[in-house]
Amino acid sequence: MSRTVAVVGATGAVGRTMISILEERRFPADRIRLFASSRSAGTRVETVWGQVEVEDLATADPSGVDIALFSAGGDRSREHAPRFVEAGAVVVDNSSAFRGDPEVPLVVAGVNDHAVESHRGLIANPNCSTMTLMMAAGPLHRAAGLVSMVAVTYQSVSGSGQKGIDELVEQTDLLRPDVELLADGTGPEVPARVYPRPIGFNVLPFAGSLSGDEGYTDEELKLVNESRKILEVPDLKVEPHCARVPVLVGHGVYATMWFSRPMSVEEATTVLSDAPGLELWTDKIPTPQDAAGRDEVLAARVRPTLGAPGGINLWVVGDNLRKGAALNAVQIAELLA
Amino acid sequence: MSRTVAVVGATGAVGRTMISILEERRFPADRIRLFASSRSAGTRVETVWGQVEVEDLATADPSGVDIALFSAGGDRSREHAPRFVEAGAVVVDNSSAFRGDPEVPLVVAGVNDHAVESHRGLIANPNCSTMTLMMAAGPLHRAAGLVSMVAVTYQSVSGSGQKGIDELVEQTDLLRPDVELLADGTGPEVPARVYPRPIGFNVLPFAGSLSGDEGYTDEELKLVNESRKILEVPDLKVEPHCARVPVLVGHGVYATMWFSRPMSVEEATTVLSDAPGLELWTDKIPTPQDAAGRDEVLAARVRPTLGAPGGINLWVVGDNLRKGAALNAVQIAELLA
Repeated sequence: MSRTVAVVGATGAVGRTMISILEERRFPADRIRLFASSRSAGTRVETVWGQVEVEDLATADPSGVDIALFSAGGDRSREHAPRFVEAGAVVVDNSSAFRGDPEVPLVVAGVNDHAVESHRGLIANPNCSTMTLMMAAGPLHRAAGLVSMVAVTYQSVSGSGQKGIDELVEQTDLLRPDVELLADGTGPEVPARVYPRPIGFNVLPFAGSLSGDEGYTDEELKLVNESRKILEVPDLKVEPHCARVPVLVGHGVYATMWFSRPMSVEEATTVLSDAPGLELWTDKIPTPQDAAGRDEVLAARVRPTLGAPGGINLWVVGDNLRKGAALNAVQIAELLA
Repeated sequence: MSRTVAVVGATGAVGRTMISILEERRFPADRIRLFASSRSAGTRVETVWGQVEVEDLATADPSGVDIALFSAGGDRSREHAPRFVEAGAVVVDNSSAFRGDPEVPLVVAGVNDHAVESHRGLIANPNCSTMTLMMAAGPLHRAAGLVSMVAVTYQSVSGSGQKGIDELVEQTDLLRPDVELLADGTGPEVPARVYPRPIGFNVLPFAGSLSGDEGYTDEELKLVNESRKILEVPDLKVEPHCARVPVLVGHGVYATMWFSRPMSVEEATTVLSDAPGLELWTDKIPTPQDAAGRDEVLAARVRPTLGAPGGINLWVVGDNLRKGAALNAVQIAELLA
């Protein structure tokens, strides 16, 4: 049987990573097709399946595509994913367009693989911070039943795509000559386009856009709603706080978790040591730079709660372009293949 | 009556800020004396009280000093503060040496000023992250009785003194030419001296040094123990997570708080709007760069808890060299004067 895999949004940061991960993992396809906006259509890309010409998503015929990995933003997913499904493809969508749809499974490979089975042509890839956190929270939940959690993120600029990286680099260059002035608040003002405030040598306690009227951002609400769906705990209590930090790649999360029964550090350590796709570091401190370019999510600093006893405090950090996006989409495709 | 104020550790980052804040606020002293290690002794410093020669802390006679602001590290405080007290001075100590001593008040000016009265010659200045958080937690606690809190920090490198700033700047310069390589984990290794891992374009989920055998750092345990002492809630439940971020000045804290009764966002907003030394921002997002060089701690993003109802989620950020250290020490001195 011949199999065709497609990458939609093939020229973006996540799309390019999808192609290289399909190649690295020798994904069992006979052909790859690449789709992007008309601006990028016609570009030729070298792949292990030969040179491929990027097709214009708006006009191309998806017939013959078996599995399509979408990473072209929510609007394009809403417009074109149904077309691919109608043409017979299974779509793995990296946008947030379908994540809340009860008929669309939301899958973290290694955590809730079984959910893939119920798909009706569409499978959603979770938000990058949620994904990173779920790699630790999923196994701990299976062991003891997660009841509540506080999750606080340190999100890198590549979560906003290449333009986030460009903005951090540009602002760093502009601020560097006068960097000492930042210490007394007299540093230069630098242009901020991607983010509402400068991210160079700064922290933005705001990631994504405001959603609803309680002051939360969509990034924060994803931590609540997607965690509930992935873990299948509809009443999971989550307090989310998201921030952007001046880091290129790698999203970190500090979390406090309480379970249906007390969880000891020893038990959590055993569970996390056996968790697929996760590396528990006990002798070194994993930073975003350590996670960048790696498939595994890194966990560390497993500590007993100091207030209400029996909970766990920990740190996780993962490559938001790999497990946080492209790798997990490819892993879902592997579950389908 | 003539009054002499002293700054001990006068040539360090906090010490220099103490001198300029004493000047800015026209502290009611007739004379200022400056003390530092033998290495800096003999240096002449221009002040509004005239040119002052830095004295050698180890050999100088503290007689005649009325109020001494110490910021020379815990070891020097332990060795020399008692000598100043014996000579008749009241010592306001910025180190952690005496903070846990039940006979030494731990004071956040504007939050628990009354505690100053019980001093026996020594008053402790709280940890910088704790101080920032207390500026919001204190007024909210007075309104509704704080019961539990999760506190997660984004701490700048100036919390480690000038050497922290130097390390961030040096690593930024070394990483900048190859910065794009950090995105796939192939960036250069850079020397890390002050911190256990590189801080440039990175996050270190570790601030301070390991303390006790449960995996917490001293910075994290300060958030627990100092909050309990300042708020006079010995059984306050605190889950602390500290991280260092590549920011020059300004410590941010995301916190989740629950009280002895439900607290609405409206009530919290009213309380924080009236809180001394705090500015509640509702139209702009306060970042560490906004807080740098300012006396006020900035608060924002007051949200209702989404899990267990009736709690408050918020962000606070303050200049760790000013309110987080030097300013508060001077304010304590003003309470004494």
